[in-house]
Amino acid sequence: MLTWVNHIALAVPDLEATAARYRDSFAATVSEPQALPEHGVTVAFVAIANTKIELLEPLGENSPISSFLAKNPDGGMHHICYEVPDLLAARDHLKAAGARVLGDGNPKIGAHGKPVLFLHPKDFFGTLIELEEVN
Amino acid sequence: MLTWVNHIALAVPDLEATAARYRDSFAATVSEPQALPEHGVTVAFVAIANTKIELLEPLGENSPISSFLAKNPDGGMHHICYEVPDLLAARDHLKAAGARVLGDGNPKIGAHGKPVLFLHPKDFFGTLIELEEVN
Repeated sequence: MLTWVNHIALAVPDLEATAARYRDSFAATVSEPQALPEHGVTVAFVAIANTKIELLEPLGENSPISSFLAKNPDGGMHHICYEVPDLLAARDHLKAAGARVLGDGNPKIGAHGKPVLFLHPKDFFGTLIELEEVN
Repeated sequence: MLTWVNHIALAVPDLEATAARYRDSFAATVSEPQALPEHGVTVAFVAIANTKIELLEPLGENSPISSFLAKNPDGGMHHICYEVPDLLAARDHLKAAGARVLGDGNPKIGAHGKPVLFLHPKDFFGTLIELEEVN
């Protein structure tokens, strides 16, 4: 059911400094930061041919990445997003297998405009997993 | 210079349990565990079309992932490996940009039989980065 790594998300305390570091160190192309206030983050992407590296900086009071950065002040690897063809079927399969879906268990519209769910990292050995419906 | 995400490595305390969880929860294909005593890890891969998810379990007394698992007993996202076409050129560019290469700064043969280097996570906002020469 996991068809593709849509993105790897890195939470960072300073998006501009991170973008500059990737540009200087790797001659990487990094997109302009985009503020997504409804998601509590500012995002930019490091250009890589086969997947996306998503840089996330907290935005506003209740950013979903604030607690991660409180525990990891330097930043760090935050989550992996996999594409699935049918999010509700994936959710029902996961629940039947005993995995916990975060929130109320219903898909939300994610930062890229598609339905997403997050899975409890305790059920996946410390990795926070996002599932995004792409079909 | 970063051409491709070769793999995303997840350090886990129990490779068999993790493989079973990915199989049960996602109907994923996970390769048979392979012991790499010279690298201090046992590895397995979750099959994904566009990159590799590498599951790592410590092997032996001096595993390079033991300290990570001591800090993160549940497991977690350990590193991202990017392919570069010329590892020595990448290293020299990185050093000129002020980034620290781990170890003695010389490429080693990595777990997949190719030359690799690791970069200091403090220089990349908490993300441990491996560079692998693929050309």
